[in-house]
Amino acid sequence: MFDIGPIHPESTEPLYRQIAENFKRLIAAGKMAPGSRLPATRELAGQLGLNRATVSAAYEVLESEGFITGQVGRGSFVSCRGGAPAHVESTGNRIDWRKILDHGAIASPAAPASTPLASFASSRPSEFLFPLDEFRATCEEVIRSPEAQTILQLGPPGGYPPLRRYLLERAQAEGVARASDDILITNGCQQSMSLLENLLVRPGDTILLEDPVYLGMKNVFERSGARLAGVPVGPDGIDITALERIAIRERPRLLAVTPNFQNPTGATLPLASRQSVIRIARAAGIIVIENDIYGELAYEGDAEPPIKLLDDSGDTVLLRSFSKLAFPGLRVGWIIGPRPLIERLTEAKQWSDLHADQLSQAVLLRFAESGRLAEHRRRMLAAGRERLHAALDACEKYLPQEARFTRPRGGMSLWIHLPAPLDATELLARAEREGVTYLPGKYFAVSRSDPGGLRISFAGMTPAQIDSGLAILGRISKNELVRSETRERFAEAPAVV
Amino acid sequence: MFDIGPIHPESTEPLYRQIAENFKRLIAAGKMAPGSRLPATRELAGQLGLNRATVSAAYEVLESEGFITGQVGRGSFVSCRGGAPAHVESTGNRIDWRKILDHGAIASPAAPASTPLASFASSRPSEFLFPLDEFRATCEEVIRSPEAQTILQLGPPGGYPPLRRYLLERAQAEGVARASDDILITNGCQQSMSLLENLLVRPGDTILLEDPVYLGMKNVFERSGARLAGVPVGPDGIDITALERIAIRERPRLLAVTPNFQNPTGATLPLASRQSVIRIARAAGIIVIENDIYGELAYEGDAEPPIKLLDDSGDTVLLRSFSKLAFPGLRVGWIIGPRPLIERLTEAKQWSDLHADQLSQAVLLRFAESGRLAEHRRRMLAAGRERLHAALDACEKYLPQEARFTRPRGGMSLWIHLPAPLDATELLARAEREGVTYLPGKYFAVSRSDPGGLRISFAGMTPAQIDSGLAILGRISKNELVRSETRERFAEAPAVV
Repeated sequence: MFDIGPIHPESTEPLYRQIAENFKRLIAAGKMAPGSRLPATRELAGQLGLNRATVSAAYEVLESEGFITGQVGRGSFVSCRGGAPAHVESTGNRIDWRKILDHGAIASPAAPASTPLASFASSRPSEFLFPLDEFRATCEEVIRSPEAQTILQLGPPGGYPPLRRYLLERAQAEGVARASDDILITNGCQQSMSLLENLLVRPGDTILLEDPVYLGMKNVFERSGARLAGVPVGPDGIDITALERIAIRERPRLLAVTPNFQNPTGATLPLASRQSVIRIARAAGIIVIENDIYGELAYEGDAEPPIKLLDDSGDTVLLRSFSKLAFPGLRVGWIIGPRPLIERLTEAKQWSDLHADQLSQAVLLRFAESGRLAEHRRRMLAAGRERLHAALDACEKYLPQEARFTRPRGGMSLWIHLPAPLDATELLARAEREGVTYLPGKYFAVSRSDPGGLRISFAGMTPAQIDSGLAILGRISKNELVRSETRERFAEAPAVV
Repeated sequence: MFDIGPIHPESTEPLYRQIAENFKRLIAAGKMAPGSRLPATRELAGQLGLNRATVSAAYEVLESEGFITGQVGRGSFVSCRGGAPAHVESTGNRIDWRKILDHGAIASPAAPASTPLASFASSRPSEFLFPLDEFRATCEEVIRSPEAQTILQLGPPGGYPPLRRYLLERAQAEGVARASDDILITNGCQQSMSLLENLLVRPGDTILLEDPVYLGMKNVFERSGARLAGVPVGPDGIDITALERIAIRERPRLLAVTPNFQNPTGATLPLASRQSVIRIARAAGIIVIENDIYGELAYEGDAEPPIKLLDDSGDTVLLRSFSKLAFPGLRVGWIIGPRPLIERLTEAKQWSDLHADQLSQAVLLRFAESGRLAEHRRRMLAAGRERLHAALDACEKYLPQEARFTRPRGGMSLWIHLPAPLDATELLARAEREGVTYLPGKYFAVSRSDPGGLRISFAGMTPAQIDSGLAILGRISKNELVRSETRERFAEAPAVV
């Protein structure tokens, strides 16, 4: 029996992280020497009464952070670094890192991007749908081409010129890039947001965000010292009446909006609302950032025209990316906007990291130009449609009758609202014990809290996983509802004395 | 005879940029319609009395920015985008981008990173020294491996785990990473600086930089609203007496120092000075950022031990990168520092751009692990040594006797100080007319201006190019010196009346 210390199933910290942290403490305290063997995952899972995948995830975290080393067929061992003394002799004044780093901390959950569990927690495509053979063929064409030498050399800050040209010409053909527009290649939409924040937002500015909104969007603006104001999102995207009211009251600098298959709700903004966004933004002098990274994932019917295309002024700034369609491990996205803005963003990009990685830019260009991306997209749309339907069917079948959920027509996620008194954060610990994870509403909240809200990201899982995951979530929710009713019944007030 | 408008040889704007800008004006004004042919480079060069390379460079800029399209064997044509009307109909209030973007502009030269001329202006390896066959073999091993699927999926913000582990283990073996340290993979040293600036620097802080210093370093801290104070750099790196004085007077937050083959001077900090840096920083509570991206390029003798290794407190933050040795188009660098700092930087990295590109991380890891990087480094050291000697010999041979220059023992650049009244900025226009470019001292100045200073980056050129480039620079300098003496002799004051 191996004692790894206390595990708190009721904590919001995922179980696998708790296990990993406990091991780190044992290693740091010298209770597990370098080279010593960790218990087998099956053994420890049995002992703790947990799913084996939870223990494996903990070991993966420890390995990725260098605390342990896995040896195929032999097990996992404490690495030399992990076992080295935690403190070094220090002479003179040490820098007090905790104190220096104390202010300005960004609120972030247990990084879902790196979560190794199969889960509803991450809005990314399934790696089992990656067209590996096509990727390999594309890559070989690129590295064997005479361009290889240019790709490997330092490039221009605006992006790999052939990719810039390709994307700009396509955007022009689509009508979203005007003669007054230009393009900047970034490391994906997150960097696009970050560069815009850096350039356009000053402390004290008010920024309008959808509420709920993707946590990466919230965090990027939070660090600028701006005031975030949420515009409520319903099944039809942001509430236009609320937007108009807030725009007049707050005189915001900027509105970030995701009109297609918004993260986390999956909502789509109707054409009339898109036109209203332009009208309101124009009247109040608000910069509109249109985040369209899910736009190509329309499973039902056609997508509505982008705000950028409808906006005659040309002032809308459009963000797109390859990451939701193709290979998110290759970090390439782009910004299309008025030339003076793109010029300054390109300068900011140069001093941020010189330019985006050119190998991935060239590979993604070739992937697109060769027609493989379009072919892959067709398969992704079929797979996404199947997953969306599996999720909607399962919500219908398993969730408590009083639960509400959005009905997206594309994208990667939907939003569930569990009936009171259910709390999605509290429920998560219980769900994780049964191998189901998701992100509760608190991570997406801007101005309104929605304790019953949670995001289900369905794109990365199989229809069968979606069905069984939502079955578990449904069962837990129903049980908890019954239990809370029982509690209420017996929690009557004492007699007045 | 094709009229492209006025060219000003005496301007500090490089000639190729002037030509490009003139073409843009013609296109924007509708004087060159979409599809119309540009004059052949040879023809226009002859007409303007310029080097053909200058005109080609202008065309490359225009092409990279999408204004023109090149067709092999047919020439260059105005692209459709370039020829479209420059203004679109606008209804309602337009965003006044110029006004919004006016404040906080970063001072930057005509982006040397994207300069397509063979020149002394960019500190990057020559693409002709890239081991293309080895790169291709490495890339194929990576994409054919079972890891491909993982690489293409979204990864952890700290970096591709096998690369993190590899680099951290090597750093531990070298003694620069302690048990209290951790590592973050970034998109190269520029992003490392940018993340550190974002996390550690607040408006009003004082930042100590070497003077002169790499302009990317200066620009990254300038945008934070910090006060930059320069510590003079001589042939033996930063002046320790000055550092001590400034540290006491200014109570700076942070010192960024490049102890090996500093950019732009090529200077190396002796062991005793490294120890003094630690002593002074410790006494004043200054965070030391050690930029060691040139450290592996020691052409003469061994490099001195890194400050990070000498610093018992473990507080020094070490920056390294693959870019100066291997393939700068693949953007991968790393930060080694105290774990609490790395934790927060990793969080900042996530909200900046999620994580570094994984394909390039995996390719560079394989390149290193396979031994190909070490082999390539040997060839790069031989080539670098040859280029350094060519540069030093040419400086000796061609520069005016009164000129001074540094004698680096590694790296990519050296610093020339031309005697008064020569001005390196004024001389540049003349040099560019003869096909020689460099960056004048003004771009590197922090607190002191050095009108006679200029950086010669020799690593990207052949020994023959270095020799002939410096021969031209020497001849121009000597002629200009003679001319200024003549001017002085005849510029006597008029008789007093």
